[in-house]
Amino acid sequence: MTKRFSTVGLMGRVSDPEVTGMAGRLAKQLLGAKVKVYGDEALGLPASAGVQVLPAQALAANADLLIVVGGDGTLLKAAQLIAARPIPLVGVNLGKLGFLADITPEQVQEDIAAMLEGDYTHEERMMLQARALRGNIAEAPRTALNDVVVHKSDGGRLIEFETWVDGHFLCAYRADGIVLATPTGSTAYALSGGGPIVHPVMDAIALVPICPHTLGDRPLVVAGSSRIEVRIGDTHSGGAHVTWDGQHAEMLKPGDRVEAQRSAKPITFIHPRGYDYYKILRSKLHWGRGTHTS
Amino acid sequence: MTKRFSTVGLMGRVSDPEVTGMAGRLAKQLLGAKVKVYGDEALGLPASAGVQVLPAQALAANADLLIVVGGDGTLLKAAQLIAARPIPLVGVNLGKLGFLADITPEQVQEDIAAMLEGDYTHEERMMLQARALRGNIAEAPRTALNDVVVHKSDGGRLIEFETWVDGHFLCAYRADGIVLATPTGSTAYALSGGGPIVHPVMDAIALVPICPHTLGDRPLVVAGSSRIEVRIGDTHSGGAHVTWDGQHAEMLKPGDRVEAQRSAKPITFIHPRGYDYYKILRSKLHWGRGTHTS
Amino acid sequence: MTKRFSTVGLMGRVSDPEVTGMAGRLAKQLLGAKVKVYGDEALGLPASAGVQVLPAQALAANADLLIVVGGDGTLLKAAQLIAARPIPLVGVNLGKLGFLADITPEQVQEDIAAMLEGDYTHEERMMLQARALRGNIAEAPRTALNDVVVHKSDGGRLIEFETWVDGHFLCAYRADGIVLATPTGSTAYALSGGGPIVHPVMDAIALVPICPHTLGDRPLVVAGSSRIEVRIGDTHSGGAHVTWDGQHAEMLKPGDRVEAQRSAKPITFIHPRGYDYYKILRSKLHWGRGTHTS
Amino acid sequence: MTKRFSTVGLMGRVSDPEVTGMAGRLAKQLLGAKVKVYGDEALGLPASAGVQVLPAQALAANADLLIVVGGDGTLLKAAQLIAARPIPLVGVNLGKLGFLADITPEQVQEDIAAMLEGDYTHEERMMLQARALRGNIAEAPRTALNDVVVHKSDGGRLIEFETWVDGHFLCAYRADGIVLATPTGSTAYALSGGGPIVHPVMDAIALVPICPHTLGDRPLVVAGSSRIEVRIGDTHSGGAHVTWDGQHAEMLKPGDRVEAQRSAKPITFIHPRGYDYYKILRSKLHWGRGTHTS
Repeated sequence: MTKRFSTVGLMGRVSDPEVTGMAGRLAKQLLGAKVKVYGDEALGLPASAGVQVLPAQALAANADLLIVVGGDGTLLKAAQLIAARPIPLVGVNLGKLGFLADITPEQVQEDIAAMLEGDYTHEERMMLQARALRGNIAEAPRTALNDVVVHKSDGGRLIEFETWVDGHFLCAYRADGIVLATPTGSTAYALSGGGPIVHPVMDAIALVPICPHTLGDRPLVVAGSSRIEVRIGDTHSGGAHVTWDGQHAEMLKPGDRVEAQRSAKPITFIHPRGYDYYKILRSKLHWGRGTHTS
Repeated sequence: MTKRFSTVGLMGRVSDPEVTGMAGRLAKQLLGAKVKVYGDEALGLPASAGVQVLPAQALAANADLLIVVGGDGTLLKAAQLIAARPIPLVGVNLGKLGFLADITPEQVQEDIAAMLEGDYTHEERMMLQARALRGNIAEAPRTALNDVVVHKSDGGRLIEFETWVDGHFLCAYRADGIVLATPTGSTAYALSGGGPIVHPVMDAIALVPICPHTLGDRPLVVAGSSRIEVRIGDTHSGGAHVTWDGQHAEMLKPGDRVEAQRSAKPITFIHPRGYDYYKILRSKLHWGRGTHTS
Repeated sequence: MTKRFSTVGLMGRVSDPEVTGMAGRLAKQLLGAKVKVYGDEALGLPASAGVQVLPAQALAANADLLIVVGGDGTLLKAAQLIAARPIPLVGVNLGKLGFLADITPEQVQEDIAAMLEGDYTHEERMMLQARALRGNIAEAPRTALNDVVVHKSDGGRLIEFETWVDGHFLCAYRADGIVLATPTGSTAYALSGGGPIVHPVMDAIALVPICPHTLGDRPLVVAGSSRIEVRIGDTHSGGAHVTWDGQHAEMLKPGDRVEAQRSAKPITFIHPRGYDYYKILRSKLHWGRGTHTS
Repeated sequence: MTKRFSTVGLMGRVSDPEVTGMAGRLAKQLLGAKVKVYGDEALGLPASAGVQVLPAQALAANADLLIVVGGDGTLLKAAQLIAARPIPLVGVNLGKLGFLADITPEQVQEDIAAMLEGDYTHEERMMLQARALRGNIAEAPRTALNDVVVHKSDGGRLIEFETWVDGHFLCAYRADGIVLATPTGSTAYALSGGGPIVHPVMDAIALVPICPHTLGDRPLVVAGSSRIEVRIGDTHSGGAHVTWDGQHAEMLKPGDRVEAQRSAKPITFIHPRGYDYYKILRSKLHWGRGTHTS
């Protein structure tokens, strides 16, 4: 038995008239279905009867479904926002299919209507939580749906670091950096770095070195329950930093550590009936089309 | 509380005097510890008081621990033998560390003594079960600890095939073949094909295409509960075959299918205290040594 | 000043009515332009005034331009046929663009007309010549436009071999095999094995190991003047073989050698004006389309 | 007939007492062989009879052989210094074999003595020359022995750029960056990015994208005579920069271009007799040791 939604939040990529238009049409449809609607104030929805405009934080605290209009990047931001109270998330794209934004403009009205009737599939996906530490001083942990990336900073040639898994030493690297990716993030930056595709329902973390100067360093997939630690060694005067979903960055110095583990709470995605991960995968990766020999 | 073993089977690589010597010393140690010993008849152990020489099948059916002397290949064979009744397995190498044969000649006496005292760690690893089908006719399924590989046969240039996961179409390939690897097998042939390393405790199957002629085809890791199907298309007159751990092969024709899924029973490995998978990984892959820039 | 052609041979993929139809139209056009036409007897061209039907060997020995209708595979065969007396080659595809067959059905009439007027570009491409040796006994050398491949045979797990370049030991491999590719062949099987794309005008040979069990073994590009030797070591009971452009195979035993070097004579391809290698490359590899992140 | 050297410059990694010690011993040996010696003032050689201490620029302008003590990084700096007047270069390492610094401390006295007698091999290697352009304003070109790298700057997620070869459009990329590598540089950063090893005597440039978000983008090797242009598109607010051998950097904005081509003058390396590139390659890449299956 699927859950019905009575309060829906609307977010979207800011400063994009197309997004605002789509959000406006969605608001109208939701109100018509007797659903209470919160609009993110950054979205610029025109004030109108029935839509309550709120700051994103307040919206996330009060809605029981979040519809996000935009690309995968916009969904990553929304996922971070609701990490503490992970209400279900729906992604609507504007014509370019995303891994996360999987409802098309053509289908949006019909799909949302079906979802409000309880006709949808839902899927839990793990998130990562990571924090930087300098000696005993720890930064507050942040959440990532795709990945936590440790990378050399501007001007640097490479960084040296060690990885530890559950307190066991894994490997010493000389590399541009390393991606700690969730299954969701396995099709993002980690894939560019040569990592495997990990099915999104899996409970797993992929460790993917970026441009390792040691040829044998290969991507590693470990259990989702693993605690990963990256210890920064010599940064060769160029410095290093850690990013969460490419959206927040903190500088790292030699000796600093980054600790990452699965977030306590997974995030739930709502998909239209007939959702097929492999179909999206084939479409996004152009599988079946790139044959190079005839 | 770990289990004590009262009946131990001894197997090993055949026709290798070094193996027979090591097995003889182990038999003596086991008998001295009041443990009943079965010796694989292929091992050529000299008849002596206390060691009962049996065919491998009978040995596997009666022992409650199996000590295997040799390399990883010998352990793969032993694992297939006990798949139906998976008694714990210990691997003793002869000087060349294996992923599975992780007890060294130097440590063997001490490690086995500790194991008999119940001082060891144990680890369950999933196996794969796969069968070939032609129309409605299915071959009997076989078990693999490392991998089930579908590959072009001699003389062929490439084969075409499709993969399906849990009834969902994944991808059409033009390639030399595909590896369906357990986590244990992720460091064997799958790694040569560009697959990721998957931690052995994980419940996962890696699909690794071999030399895909479609550049975007990347290794995929799916849940261990997945049912994988490989459907052979055009083999370009060269034919195809499927192998289990590289030890048994069956020919495949266009239209044939291979179905693979997790075996009902996992296999249990006994490791000496202090066993560290990452340490073996670093040693086998020479991690930390292959830096190419200074 | 480009050369004019007065005698043109027509070849094509056999037993393909579409090819025969295209060849018939080409013959008519050539005769209309006062060019003497030889038709490959395997092509099944209807006997008609002006077209002389010959065996392929005789045709290759007498024409001063060869037009080949079909895919890249058909051109590889034609290239081997004319290796001893390399007359210029033109490739006409039947709708699916090839790296070598770069004239489309839509453009063929116009492009051939221009070529007969001397309006074309030509490009020399190196070929490989390789032979197998057992002790002092050498097989006759054969020619390859794409690649010479040493590969494990059916049933084998891997082969061991060494490579030597100009008498210098390069590397000992444990692998499925190795591709020795010309620049032309760098976009064929070598690319599937992880090799680089080498611009076709270069004088170079790429050595690309297939599924090396040694992680550090990387593709190597050496000067076209290099003499390469592959020495077969242990084949683990599975055997090995060498192939030329995937079209001819010879079995190899432990101790056998394969010697490869640039052919004495390059082959000349005739392209229509405006030929752009990079455009074909982008089209064949779907470059610019396979973005996986939005 | 090899050249004899009468004036030798000595350079080395600065602020390293071991380097200064080695340089001192070399100076003594050279003076004993009646060779005029210039010492780089940054080297901190003690003033002594016979050794003339000069700024590096002056030293490079007057010596007819340059001996550099240190690692490959030190040789890259020396190579840039002498790019305009490329005198032969010898590299002496301090215990860790380099690709360029190939004389060991154990052999140095004997090897240098032989070189002064004219007993050595020499090898020419191409260098790259590249400059950044903003509109019609061009920076002065700089020289690189290893590579010219265009890379995203700190904080950026990826950059977009196009590559052009000899005025032909090659490809549009979304990536971390791209390496334009000489054969010498093919075993440095380009190798980490998945590029092939290119034999150092070749006249070739390798284009190796770093973490391309388009799966089909593969390393490309083009003729050394090619003119490469990289045109920066959207940098997604993170910026980009270009570096020469990782030693000098310039910022790039959207619309900026980087033009690279072979330097007019190659650089000459002097090697001891018996120099074997493949031996160094095997040693640096640990070839033949990293077998992962037994």
